[in-house]
Amino acid sequence: MATRKKKPTKKPAAKKTTARKTSRKAPKSSTEQKASKLAAEVQKRNERMNGMTVDMICDTANGVYKDILKRAKPDLYFPVRSLKNVSYSQKKGYFEIGKQKKQRTLTVNTVKSFAQTLRMMGLSKELVEGNDFATKRDAYYQSKNWEDAKFDEQSESDTVMDDIEALFSVRGLSREQLRFVPDEHGGAVAGQLIVLDPDRETGEIERIDCTRFGSGAYSIPSNVEHLSFETDAKFVLAIETGGIFQRLQSHKFWQSSNCILVSMAGVPTRATRRFIRKLSDQCKIPVYAFVDCDPYGISNIYRTLKVGSGNAAHLSQFFCVPQARFLGVTPQDIVDYELPTHPLLDVDIKRAKDALKNDPFFQTHKPWQQAIQQLLKMGVRAEQQALAKWGLNYVIEEYLPKKLANTSKFLP
Amino acid sequence: MATRKKKPTKKPAAKKTTARKTSRKAPKSSTEQKASKLAAEVQKRNERMNGMTVDMICDTANGVYKDILKRAKPDLYFPVRSLKNVSYSQKKGYFEIGKQKKQRTLTVNTVKSFAQTLRMMGLSKELVEGNDFATKRDAYYQSKNWEDAKFDEQSESDTVMDDIEALFSVRGLSREQLRFVPDEHGGAVAGQLIVLDPDRETGEIERIDCTRFGSGAYSIPSNVEHLSFETDAKFVLAIETGGIFQRLQSHKFWQSSNCILVSMAGVPTRATRRFIRKLSDQCKIPVYAFVDCDPYGISNIYRTLKVGSGNAAHLSQFFCVPQARFLGVTPQDIVDYELPTHPLLDVDIKRAKDALKNDPFFQTHKPWQQAIQQLLKMGVRAEQQALAKWGLNYVIEEYLPKKLANTSKFLP
Repeated sequence: MATRKKKPTKKPAAKKTTARKTSRKAPKSSTEQKASKLAAEVQKRNERMNGMTVDMICDTANGVYKDILKRAKPDLYFPVRSLKNVSYSQKKGYFEIGKQKKQRTLTVNTVKSFAQTLRMMGLSKELVEGNDFATKRDAYYQSKNWEDAKFDEQSESDTVMDDIEALFSVRGLSREQLRFVPDEHGGAVAGQLIVLDPDRETGEIERIDCTRFGSGAYSIPSNVEHLSFETDAKFVLAIETGGIFQRLQSHKFWQSSNCILVSMAGVPTRATRRFIRKLSDQCKIPVYAFVDCDPYGISNIYRTLKVGSGNAAHLSQFFCVPQARFLGVTPQDIVDYELPTHPLLDVDIKRAKDALKNDPFFQTHKPWQQAIQQLLKMGVRAEQQALAKWGLNYVIEEYLPKKLANTSKFLP
Repeated sequence: MATRKKKPTKKPAAKKTTARKTSRKAPKSSTEQKASKLAAEVQKRNERMNGMTVDMICDTANGVYKDILKRAKPDLYFPVRSLKNVSYSQKKGYFEIGKQKKQRTLTVNTVKSFAQTLRMMGLSKELVEGNDFATKRDAYYQSKNWEDAKFDEQSESDTVMDDIEALFSVRGLSREQLRFVPDEHGGAVAGQLIVLDPDRETGEIERIDCTRFGSGAYSIPSNVEHLSFETDAKFVLAIETGGIFQRLQSHKFWQSSNCILVSMAGVPTRATRRFIRKLSDQCKIPVYAFVDCDPYGISNIYRTLKVGSGNAAHLSQFFCVPQARFLGVTPQDIVDYELPTHPLLDVDIKRAKDALKNDPFFQTHKPWQQAIQQLLKMGVRAEQQALAKWGLNYVIEEYLPKKLANTSKFLP
């Protein structure tokens, strides 16, 4: 058992130097030089964003401060986070938060949550300046030292963080830029990609070659804002199951088809979605989704990847991948490839009908309505691994090449 | 939508050449030569294991075949997989399956499952010979082409696979050696470690340096049997949450304390446990577990990592990490570090009492009984991120260094 320890006297705060300039020793090739330049640009952009973030936090805090000096009641305005305050434009390609705001005025009743909101912004400022980060849980426990402003439950601190995130999202800043990062697994990557990752302290760039991991893969960090990419790949393949990812990785499918494989392991995490989005944006390559043919794969995994989710619309601008298209498994594939199926469960049927009736994304895209109708009519679903009926590597040798020869036919 | 496709005529079987000899171009350093030699040994061992696996499958099948030729009813014997057929020896350090066997005789009633068992073994033989692998789900769908022997539900094929696994485990072969791999995420690794991974086709060895992933990490593949390691690290730190892993990784804790970080993300998957076990065995370094202080962290995560689980005791010999010790968070840490806590839930209390009453592992270790009693008496639990109360990096700057200065005090 641990020996009795004195109460910690100092609280080691996150106060190191801010991100420094890129420094690289003698780049060898022009590719490396180009990459180095690109990474420097990303870093410069991040430094600019860091400055903006701190400025915005200070502006908000100064507004409150001035009101108090004037003996006026200070206000904060937050966007309303609900489905009623969401719009979908096919042109922008993602769910967008509307203009409705809720007001929080400093009164006797709101003094605690008001103070907590300001302390949480203060924490964010500290994190940006110290080039550090905190998870929701970290932030909750940090507050235990905020005396009267401490949170009693993590759900309270989560709400405050979500409000701050929504507030700053309207001004173009993501939660990751506020240095609040998810406590989630980040998805695995393999294939024709070099990730450029500047060191937190020295700024020196690590070149991470995703063709060099043998049967393993690159695990995406929880924050990807500082990353940049170097690739000649033709597309990104975003895969639902670890099993199919491992098969394509072990058989180097990325080599024969010049692509980048990403394992989503179910509904992709924020970090995975942001990684795919940044990669696709920066390198201008398409993203193809390869998931199970069932309402969950279509309306939860694919729809979330492509346009975001309803109750977190303030995130969509950063996290959705509007350029994603649906490779398969499609309802028509079940017919064409004579796939083994399972009957649709009640929950599947409900999900599919909901998508048709209430989801602005599926309502906008006629081919999707037809596909979902077809699935409901057949009354069955199929997993991506069902292709193994024709041989374990049928997916590599027949299915994917055939599909990829006709990308214009992919569902939107 | 995909164009109408002819029924596939050939089933691309997994029939490439078997693993080849290691070939490396001009090793640069003696470290690399040593590593190369080690990897070659692992590969030779794997080839020997592959030969043994195929021989055992053929032996079993030949026994059945000879019985049939003699017009006798063939039998297969499988170890009983249940808690009643399990023992725990502190010396061996893991749950072990007992000698009880169940008999499966070929009769009119059992003909289908008998045939399925043999076909499943046949699939395993094909996989070994083709240097390929299959998940449980892959195997289920493969069977759709076995005509009368096809499985109707995946639960049936899973049971047959578990039986085969138990049968061969008694003879020292793991499921991974039969080439049946899990469909799970494999955990993330960062730190002072080079993983040696021979290419599936050429045998050339990829050297994967886990200090070179920037803020990302190495993602463990679903099968790790072919891997070997090169490291001077002093210990492996197995971490429950992604949040703490990311913090230690981003702040390069592995550099200052010369260790290897592994993110378990909850109860570690088979691949993660096997990876840690092989790493610790081969490099003779200790493993320290760093998890939440609650009955789940102690009796599910840590106990499973260290000695295995009751209903899969036939796996423990391959998957447990008997050399693991418990760094924290301990019940005493809650007192010593004045950690914020949550009250124990009913499910926590039940789990803790179960551990004390029914679990041979906790019954063997008195310090654990005391620790669990202490936790029950305090009536609270604490998360590892609760240390953030004293500063986000308190865990790096104070808690872990203090703990690691006194490893002999770790719970067994």
